[in-house]
Amino acid sequence: MSGARLVRDQGVTAPGGFRAVGVAAGIKASGAADMALVFNEGPDLTAAGVVTRNQVKAAPVLWTQQVLTTGRLRAVVLNSGGANACTGPPGFADAHATAEAVADALSQWGTETGAVEVAVCSTGLIGDRLPMPQVLAGVTHLVQEMAGGLVGGEDAARAIMTTDTVPKQVALHHSPESGRNWTVGAMAKGAGMLAPSLATMLCVITTDAVADAAALHRALTAAAAATFDRLDVDGCCSTNDTVLLLASGASEIAPDQDELDAAVLAVCDDLCAQLQADAEGVTKRVTVAVTGADSDAEALFTARLIARDNLVKTALFGSDPNWGRVLAAVGMAPFPIDPDRVTVSFNGSTVFAAGLPDPGARSVDLSGADVEVRVDLARGTGTAAIRTTDLSHGYVDENSAYSS
Amino acid sequence: MSGARLVRDQGVTAPGGFRAVGVAAGIKASGAADMALVFNEGPDLTAAGVVTRNQVKAAPVLWTQQVLTTGRLRAVVLNSGGANACTGPPGFADAHATAEAVADALSQWGTETGAVEVAVCSTGLIGDRLPMPQVLAGVTHLVQEMAGGLVGGEDAARAIMTTDTVPKQVALHHSPESGRNWTVGAMAKGAGMLAPSLATMLCVITTDAVADAAALHRALTAAAAATFDRLDVDGCCSTNDTVLLLASGASEIAPDQDELDAAVLAVCDDLCAQLQADAEGVTKRVTVAVTGADSDAEALFTARLIARDNLVKTALFGSDPNWGRVLAAVGMAPFPIDPDRVTVSFNGSTVFAAGLPDPGARSVDLSGADVEVRVDLARGTGTAAIRTTDLSHGYVDENSAYSS
Repeated sequence: MSGARLVRDQGVTAPGGFRAVGVAAGIKASGAADMALVFNEGPDLTAAGVVTRNQVKAAPVLWTQQVLTTGRLRAVVLNSGGANACTGPPGFADAHATAEAVADALSQWGTETGAVEVAVCSTGLIGDRLPMPQVLAGVTHLVQEMAGGLVGGEDAARAIMTTDTVPKQVALHHSPESGRNWTVGAMAKGAGMLAPSLATMLCVITTDAVADAAALHRALTAAAAATFDRLDVDGCCSTNDTVLLLASGASEIAPDQDELDAAVLAVCDDLCAQLQADAEGVTKRVTVAVTGADSDAEALFTARLIARDNLVKTALFGSDPNWGRVLAAVGMAPFPIDPDRVTVSFNGSTVFAAGLPDPGARSVDLSGADVEVRVDLARGTGTAAIRTTDLSHGYVDENSAYSS
Repeated sequence: MSGARLVRDQGVTAPGGFRAVGVAAGIKASGAADMALVFNEGPDLTAAGVVTRNQVKAAPVLWTQQVLTTGRLRAVVLNSGGANACTGPPGFADAHATAEAVADALSQWGTETGAVEVAVCSTGLIGDRLPMPQVLAGVTHLVQEMAGGLVGGEDAARAIMTTDTVPKQVALHHSPESGRNWTVGAMAKGAGMLAPSLATMLCVITTDAVADAAALHRALTAAAAATFDRLDVDGCCSTNDTVLLLASGASEIAPDQDELDAAVLAVCDDLCAQLQADAEGVTKRVTVAVTGADSDAEALFTARLIARDNLVKTALFGSDPNWGRVLAAVGMAPFPIDPDRVTVSFNGSTVFAAGLPDPGARSVDLSGADVEVRVDLARGTGTAAIRTTDLSHGYVDENSAYSS
């Protein structure tokens, strides 16, 4: 993408037409920031979204799916400190009431808004009702702060963190020197249940490009399939994953679909790298690349088998080039594999080929933080790659003491 | 099974007609016992077996699959300290040479034996050739010890241990008071890759019943499907899993098929409990039971989803009744689930039902070593259960420092 510049010190407020803010509403017992608002000043209010494939969907996901059917969003309200999942009809009423409160506050501030224009995202422990007095007071606080002129993209990114250790945001300034200056910005959280279909991942992407909802939908679904969908930390899939893309049209520039696709993809790809690097307990950033499959789908399936194999993941935590575990994972594919034609390499060094290990296979150095596992199946031309992490003591610690 | 008595201080030599022995052949650097022989004195030599479903099969598995086609085995030679997997044609030649050496030694001792009557089982690190001078000297040693009259069932069980902390064996004496006295004995190893299709599990079952190979095959496949196949520690499936059943006919009693099925099932079920209790790093013995599925197959699929979920497993390590993770795992089923009709309980206490958590859900006591997770899908009458374990620091330790 020539002429495009990616920067990580900006996020959802980098594109024209957006404000954002984060506050501590008292949902988290720690007193840390726990609510955020992203507001689209327009002139356009087009939007698209993708949500978790999990059949157990949190109340805010059910709400957001409904409002997304209009292809139009004025604002996104987000909270950490509670997932509002598995909370039944009362939980759905809470999500609805939150959207209503945002719409009311924005309307009082002077921007006539309906609840149907407000998406809601939540993250945190499954199964508890949100403390609605705090949430509703938080909404008032958010809109007051925003009305005061705050453009707090990073504050918003911080307010949605759970076990994340750093906020994640990025902006792509598209061809600023060409005179066609338009921008995509984004923020995300997610450090644990990064999974086949997204993560406990909340992500809001903004752009000042002119684009209708269909164009946004195409760009977002393609980007998510190539990025978030191929980040797989533990194979677990959250009840709350939501990725939203909002366009303000403030740049008055309408990129063609390919330009829009490329820009959204670049932003999502960078966020994925940030999410992977901050995954729970991660000590290794691992890429599993599979080539030579009958199809890209079979390559992807094989890459996931390897990326989810706890014996592979623990070996990588120990910097152990235990390639036999990679082969054993490949051998569980539901389509034919010829072990004698499979090639396995670690960080570019072939460790197994033509049915035999390389003499130096046990001494490949995996002590660095980045590991590439590459497998060629010698069957066809299908390829795919998955980003994953090792399985560490830190992962066990963070996940064995979460709700208590 | 009235009239049957299960004892754990006996194993493969409990039935008449069997000898077994274990020795230290020097395959393991530690000097620990690492080779075992189970010998069938007859009069019958019928046999059946099941092996790993992994497409990457170790050389001894490929060898054993071939010799099992005859339905007849005189002996099984087993080694720990090396899997002889992913070792190519030279590795297969090593397995073959080991069987030939056993056949020669037994023939010299006076029991005319062909290599085709000798199954070979190996366990240990994937990818290294076995030290054949030690293996072949070990074969000579094994037959010498056995010729000396040793009936060392427990020695054999010890010699096949890898990360196991205790040997596993059991014997079922069938109706000894009825006069129809016949016995099934068994030994097994496996503490790590316990998986959908067996484990890095080697298991030899012996009986002095009179039974043809077809009857043994039926009893063994049914028992394995109900026991080893439903023990799933980490979803990983070994290249070496092998379960063999040998009958000597020495009791001169021919049980009917149902009796044989029940006896083999009881022995396999007890071994499974022993394997689960000694799994790598285990601190909890977990049973995941699913009821109310459309079919038993769907119930089994759902139980595996839960049993393999790292977030569920780490929560259980922390004695955390984090039922939301169970629901999130269920929500990834590839068939329709209605979250509002799902019921989840821990140790008999309902934690989620009718779309809402139970008020006491967070305080269910999971501090004990045994945990039952029960999920009802309210769709049909299908049921299934999986045995699994928690995901602990011990698991990470043992598996991050295995080959190095």
